[in-house]
Amino acid sequence: MFNVSIVGGSGYGGGELLRLLLNHPGVNVQQVTSERFAGKRISKVHPNLRRRTDLAFCSLEELTACDLLLLSLPHGHASSQWHRFQGLAPKVIDLSADFRLESATDYLRYYGRQHPQPHLLQSFVYGIPEVNRDAIRKANFVAGAGCNATASILALFPLLSETWLPIERAVIDAKVGSSEAGNRSNDASHHPVRSGAVRSFKPTDHRHLGEIRQILGQEERHPISFSATAIDMVRGILVTCHLFPKAPLSEKDVWKRVRTVYGQEPFIRIVKEREGSYRYPEPKILSGTNYCDLGFELSQDGKHLVVIAAIDNLMKGAAGQALQCMNLMLGFEETTGLEFSGLHPI
Amino acid sequence: MFNVSIVGGSGYGGGELLRLLLNHPGVNVQQVTSERFAGKRISKVHPNLRRRTDLAFCSLEELTACDLLLLSLPHGHASSQWHRFQGLAPKVIDLSADFRLESATDYLRYYGRQHPQPHLLQSFVYGIPEVNRDAIRKANFVAGAGCNATASILALFPLLSETWLPIERAVIDAKVGSSEAGNRSNDASHHPVRSGAVRSFKPTDHRHLGEIRQILGQEERHPISFSATAIDMVRGILVTCHLFPKAPLSEKDVWKRVRTVYGQEPFIRIVKEREGSYRYPEPKILSGTNYCDLGFELSQDGKHLVVIAAIDNLMKGAAGQALQCMNLMLGFEETTGLEFSGLHPI
Amino acid sequence: MFNVSIVGGSGYGGGELLRLLLNHPGVNVQQVTSERFAGKRISKVHPNLRRRTDLAFCSLEELTACDLLLLSLPHGHASSQWHRFQGLAPKVIDLSADFRLESATDYLRYYGRQHPQPHLLQSFVYGIPEVNRDAIRKANFVAGAGCNATASILALFPLLSETWLPIERAVIDAKVGSSEAGNRSNDASHHPVRSGAVRSFKPTDHRHLGEIRQILGQEERHPISFSATAIDMVRGILVTCHLFPKAPLSEKDVWKRVRTVYGQEPFIRIVKEREGSYRYPEPKILSGTNYCDLGFELSQDGKHLVVIAAIDNLMKGAAGQALQCMNLMLGFEETTGLEFSGLHPI
Amino acid sequence: MFNVSIVGGSGYGGGELLRLLLNHPGVNVQQVTSERFAGKRISKVHPNLRRRTDLAFCSLEELTACDLLLLSLPHGHASSQWHRFQGLAPKVIDLSADFRLESATDYLRYYGRQHPQPHLLQSFVYGIPEVNRDAIRKANFVAGAGCNATASILALFPLLSETWLPIERAVIDAKVGSSEAGNRSNDASHHPVRSGAVRSFKPTDHRHLGEIRQILGQEERHPISFSATAIDMVRGILVTCHLFPKAPLSEKDVWKRVRTVYGQEPFIRIVKEREGSYRYPEPKILSGTNYCDLGFELSQDGKHLVVIAAIDNLMKGAAGQALQCMNLMLGFEETTGLEFSGLHPI
Repeated sequence: MFNVSIVGGSGYGGGELLRLLLNHPGVNVQQVTSERFAGKRISKVHPNLRRRTDLAFCSLEELTACDLLLLSLPHGHASSQWHRFQGLAPKVIDLSADFRLESATDYLRYYGRQHPQPHLLQSFVYGIPEVNRDAIRKANFVAGAGCNATASILALFPLLSETWLPIERAVIDAKVGSSEAGNRSNDASHHPVRSGAVRSFKPTDHRHLGEIRQILGQEERHPISFSATAIDMVRGILVTCHLFPKAPLSEKDVWKRVRTVYGQEPFIRIVKEREGSYRYPEPKILSGTNYCDLGFELSQDGKHLVVIAAIDNLMKGAAGQALQCMNLMLGFEETTGLEFSGLHPI
Repeated sequence: MFNVSIVGGSGYGGGELLRLLLNHPGVNVQQVTSERFAGKRISKVHPNLRRRTDLAFCSLEELTACDLLLLSLPHGHASSQWHRFQGLAPKVIDLSADFRLESATDYLRYYGRQHPQPHLLQSFVYGIPEVNRDAIRKANFVAGAGCNATASILALFPLLSETWLPIERAVIDAKVGSSEAGNRSNDASHHPVRSGAVRSFKPTDHRHLGEIRQILGQEERHPISFSATAIDMVRGILVTCHLFPKAPLSEKDVWKRVRTVYGQEPFIRIVKEREGSYRYPEPKILSGTNYCDLGFELSQDGKHLVVIAAIDNLMKGAAGQALQCMNLMLGFEETTGLEFSGLHPI
Repeated sequence: MFNVSIVGGSGYGGGELLRLLLNHPGVNVQQVTSERFAGKRISKVHPNLRRRTDLAFCSLEELTACDLLLLSLPHGHASSQWHRFQGLAPKVIDLSADFRLESATDYLRYYGRQHPQPHLLQSFVYGIPEVNRDAIRKANFVAGAGCNATASILALFPLLSETWLPIERAVIDAKVGSSEAGNRSNDASHHPVRSGAVRSFKPTDHRHLGEIRQILGQEERHPISFSATAIDMVRGILVTCHLFPKAPLSEKDVWKRVRTVYGQEPFIRIVKEREGSYRYPEPKILSGTNYCDLGFELSQDGKHLVVIAAIDNLMKGAAGQALQCMNLMLGFEETTGLEFSGLHPI
Repeated sequence: MFNVSIVGGSGYGGGELLRLLLNHPGVNVQQVTSERFAGKRISKVHPNLRRRTDLAFCSLEELTACDLLLLSLPHGHASSQWHRFQGLAPKVIDLSADFRLESATDYLRYYGRQHPQPHLLQSFVYGIPEVNRDAIRKANFVAGAGCNATASILALFPLLSETWLPIERAVIDAKVGSSEAGNRSNDASHHPVRSGAVRSFKPTDHRHLGEIRQILGQEERHPISFSATAIDMVRGILVTCHLFPKAPLSEKDVWKRVRTVYGQEPFIRIVKEREGSYRYPEPKILSGTNYCDLGFELSQDGKHLVVIAAIDNLMKGAAGQALQCMNLMLGFEETTGLEFSGLHPI
């Protein structure tokens, strides 16, 4: 039994971590911090956990040593307060954007500021098991991947890795839900405004491009663009990835390659059916699961390949993937605690 | 390990039964029938079960003996085809409306036709464990309760049972989701029409009044009315129950009584908080769970008591409650396979 | 051409007033105040008015004399700042709750505080034309009715006025959208929380009971209860009114009475059809219109009469009804500027 | 006063035509046909038109001569039954896909079958006034443009016409509502399935590419791709158009060009603001209007230009644009009957 603590447990990512850890047979939730709610019972903030735990939030100051620390703080906090965490646990998973990029130059480029602890960047392993499994297994520090980056990378990794598919260009068009923006209300999240919205909130220059390019290849190798549109959905991301191959290919080629790369992956399903309402990946049926569903279609002229990936942004895009990494780091079966199949209809 | 089969596995109730049984440690899903999809893999119909099972639907003709049979057929089929099922398993749970009423006269009144097998009505136990636990434990045949009836009965049982609270009148106003109407599409379920709807589909004389009155007391004892309004939601029921007590009471009295009756119930939670967005039961956070959340508020003059209950109509209102009954009938812990806590946000 | 100004034009009610006035052939929008947005163009706040007006908000201090003043301020402001408005225009319509109740005692009871200007209460006419048409025509000061009160009163006025239908009890169960709570964001209106909600936000003791009882009769005459549940909808109210008559009646009686009272009303439609998805009033198709659609159903035993009414809370429940009153006060045809028929599908 | 008839008036496009024509000061709705509903009152099918018209549907056989005929039939009917319509009116607007393409070869390519009346193709003018105003003014026969094509063409016309912006590639990613698929229910439109969906229903080879390329330039000139994803929305289209210019440009250049081309257009608004929740085009606030809102953002490196356009698919994408064409053909002011500003919030 490992003792695990969550720093920053009142947000949506923290809530999902808690839900998962409370059902995990091999870990004990030791402490959960929240400065805003210290002393209050966890179910006051996460109503789905009523009757599931008697834990109360504690403050950061009360945090004690444990086996593994999950940091679920707003961007910038984990790196600026690193001194408070580093001695507390031999293993740390940070869910923020602070340690995702390997290079301080990239951090400056994508986040618009100097990284406060550039020497730490190399200590962290980027936390997508399908891409980095062995390194995560051995890692002490893992940086949880961004939600949009996870969907984009998992969609394109089989095709772009090892330059299997030379392309002229890739365009990723993401449709995202409102929980991606966190649990703090603001004018843009006000229901009469946000409900029914199809909002182009980041048409160009999204920060997750840094992670995407780091894994899939920099601009010189593959020109990749990314746009995000917020739609009326709470959980979920669907990325529609438009690829323009340098030479014609067939759907059969794509099938074969994707199966080769992902054939043994427990959390990746290829979804491409001839009929029905669920022919391609659909994020809503992934709510609460750690799956990334993947589909593709090639235009008749073979020049436009569309790869579609769907995830639950709070699960495979945050807490679920962090748990998947934790399982690897602590020696558990990779799927432990992540067995929920999702609901239908929903 | 018990062998369990589902008859009528392509509907929404059947899909939920499957999802739950596939994760139940003590049962084996032996067969799942569907005339429409016989021979097809189950995941073609229930996309959330992709990679969870290799089972295919079989036809009713292929059905063989098993330990427990779950009937999830359209209303009228279980009773008219009873000869096909009765010898196949020692224990049967029927999820339709066919065996919910004890009296053939009531069946004629609420369903507008003669019951085809009136002699069977007394053999079935009405399947709400919170009301009928001991009888269910010993029963061979259980009739799954209606979804609206379940929410209504669980809301009012503590107050109206044993005439604890003499009332002048009770009015139940239910808000229900679209999955309640089943998986067959029609003009009324067409998305441009059904989306955003607040549709008074059954303002008076709802069939579930038969079950509600059977458990809570007939008109002479308590005049109970029921209305249903369909709202823009897939899963979920919220019932707002208006009670008019004959004599004044206090919220403290209500608390005490509800705790006395439900204090040990694993699937009932009292939700009544002073602040926050989840002060009262909220069906959305119950999606996929077997909980019935219960709250209440008394007007300042003590004359208007509102009791609020929320459930997932496909879970506590159908498949989840059937599994809860199955656990009792087969000697499992009552909560086995029903541990999912629900998601937040959703 | 009358000059009309709006005080408090940045809210949802103010925005609708503006939209309507800009299309009204007999009035000129002279000024629109907003302390928060003074100096900014109106279309910055009301994006649907882009290219429709070049007006900018001014501050209250800049307000000048006009023919009619529309006050659309938060509750409490119109009465506490009455000295600033009274000399500016011979006619005033206040959309807040400040002047809806005739009695200061009632105000204290329903709003929990002393009315700052009790002597003014008798000067205001309650602004529902279907109930008070002649008085509104002659009035200088009109108090716009509450949105839930409007739907409830219009539903029940034909039956309860003149004690046409002696009842034992009436229970009004309202389903309401998020715009009812105004344009200020807060934790309860945050999209991930509010989306999909079925929230019992005011099960008992709603303030609008004061208005409802004032028009339909106090408790001694008709015991009326009211509950409000917020659902996932931006605009719209549906009230399901449960009536329990002292003596049996027939649907024919109800038809006849409703037609007698409302036969000539331009904004009331009786909706009660035998088939189709729109058999009863449906708020979504009223978005942007000033209609109140009305339907009813009587249980087979004649003891439970359900009356259903739907409105757009920002139109017939606020700005539209205010314009209807304005038309009467200024001598226009009552429907001027309120001709929009609504959209389908929507 | 012109007499206008609608052929095929029971669909969503037909319903919007009716709504608009009933409010148009210069035309009289002479007849509305529907084979399915012949003899029934129009408001049985279009509930928003209750009390707005006493017209009943007639059958095609009863159709008589008029001044202008609006054909709103399923694809394929207008061309195959052309002999029934051609003598009835000097002017015809067809809303189907039958006459949009000038070339029978293109029709075969995009629609997969021979055109039944290829000699007619040249007689029709493609009905987007912003592109073809003068030709429409003089035309006898106009082909209403496809909804996705309208949004895409209006988004890109200023940049790609006259090869103002040489590009390497354009990718159009459309997010569309459920009303686009018409008023017939089916399994894919069933609310529990369609609600919350983010469905890649046509990732490649969409038929509207034929129209888009016809207006904006064939593949040799500009390689244009198009994908459509259905989201949880009834009305509305948002197209996110990714352009990759051959040479760097600035946002200023784009502003200038768009203003030059569209500066006088009554139905096109440029929406690009620094702050607020409506910085870019948002389809929901266009419901019921004939606007096309247009915005754009250029990446910091000047290599990725995103152009965003929003319309109401039933208005600017169908009935509204047809009315706009009708106004030009009959000599009315172009905006007559299309003055509705849209609602906010909604």
